Amino acid sequence: MKPVHKVNRFIVVPPSNLHQHLGDLLISLDGADVTFQVGGESFLAHRSVLAARSLVFRAELFGPMKESGNSLIEISDMESDVFKSLLHFIYTDSLPVPETTDEGETGREMVIAGHLLVAADRYNIERLKLICEEKLCNLIDSDVVATSLALAEQHGLHRIKEACFEFLALPSNLEAMMASDGYEHLKNSCPSVLRELAASFLPAELK
Amino acid sequence: MKPVHKVNRFIVVPPSNLHQHLGDLLISLDGADVTFQVGGESFLAHRSVLAARSLVFRAELFGPMKESGNSLIEISDMESDVFKSLLHFIYTDSLPVPETTDEGETGREMVIAGHLLVAADRYNIERLKLICEEKLCNLIDSDVVATSLALAEQHGLHRIKEACFEFLALPSNLEAMMASDGYEHLKNSCPSVLRELAASFLPAELK
Repeated sequence: MKPVHKVNRFIVVPPSNLHQHLGDLLISLDGADVTFQVGGESFLAHRSVLAARSLVFRAELFGPMKESGNSLIEISDMESDVFKSLLHFIYTDSLPVPETTDEGETGREMVIAGHLLVAADRYNIERLKLICEEKLCNLIDSDVVATSLALAEQHGLHRIKEACFEFLALPSNLEAMMASDGYEHLKNSCPSVLRELAASFLPAELK
Repeated sequence: MKPVHKVNRFIVVPPSNLHQHLGDLLISLDGADVTFQVGGESFLAHRSVLAARSLVFRAELFGPMKESGNSLIEISDMESDVFKSLLHFIYTDSLPVPETTDEGETGREMVIAGHLLVAADRYNIERLKLICEEKLCNLIDSDVVATSLALAEQHGLHRIKEACFEFLALPSNLEAMMASDGYEHLKNSCPSVLRELAASFLPAELK
């Protein structure tokens, strides 16, 4: 057997920092080559990074349908906060840390996560969709379940809807939801989902 | 205490795929906006990704010294294989899998790792430097140590040189190195390092 050097030198290879490098690029905006107008705000970004992360962006920015030289893209049906989080995820593969963690903010956090899920679906960013779904499921409690259910119904989020129904199968949860702030809105905006919920309580042979 | 939904749905968030997405971008080359000429070969790449990963590239491509519109950059003193590995690392944060793993290829693998270390140093890619150093240290054996030492001496790789000296402190390793193929080259190209090695064997009081 050949003698082999046993490394006793202290070479520590740190974990990957690709996420951090791209995150820094998003902050510095050096070389940004596209601008998005979303909800009255402007966001600069890098075409290559967007194209790497979303086949929808790739087609839009580099595909045969691209408008050459068009460096201003308007997105009309999205909140600026949602687009900001989407960009953060595209560059770093993680969600931004929420600015507040007050109890009262759960509702707002949930609405953002719901809208982000819709955005992730639109730009075909599968991992973000799963992260949002997981987050929305984990946020369900009696205060916000009415809002979750309205969101799920409005945006066709089937798994969230199922999770809400499961939560509401417990009578005390159902009762608490009916006393919550979001219930009126749910009743007015999505009456059909309440009928569907009521039907889910029926014994199987009556459905 | 508020009732909280216990998620029993099977939502599995997979690990980050940022590396894979950028690796795919390097393969597809969609939207590539800069070409490098290295060792007779051409390589397309994306300015934003290079700038995110190397402050040297960032200054070269986006800094005040950049030549605007210059999309062809020539690198004269690098092998094309080395630049190819450098690009792979920049996009994926990992080294490409070597094409062969034959025993006889260790020498070639080591030379590539050495040159890659020099390239990483030139473009200030710290993590790649550490990976190459670790690799070079791990590859040291009696067959290649002469080549490692010549590389270390030619490119100022202090830690590799130290690791070689440590390996050669064992008389049987030193003897095997002097019988190896690389010894003649080492003797001719870097005679001073052999004098330094010999001096390292002297007792401390004679140095």
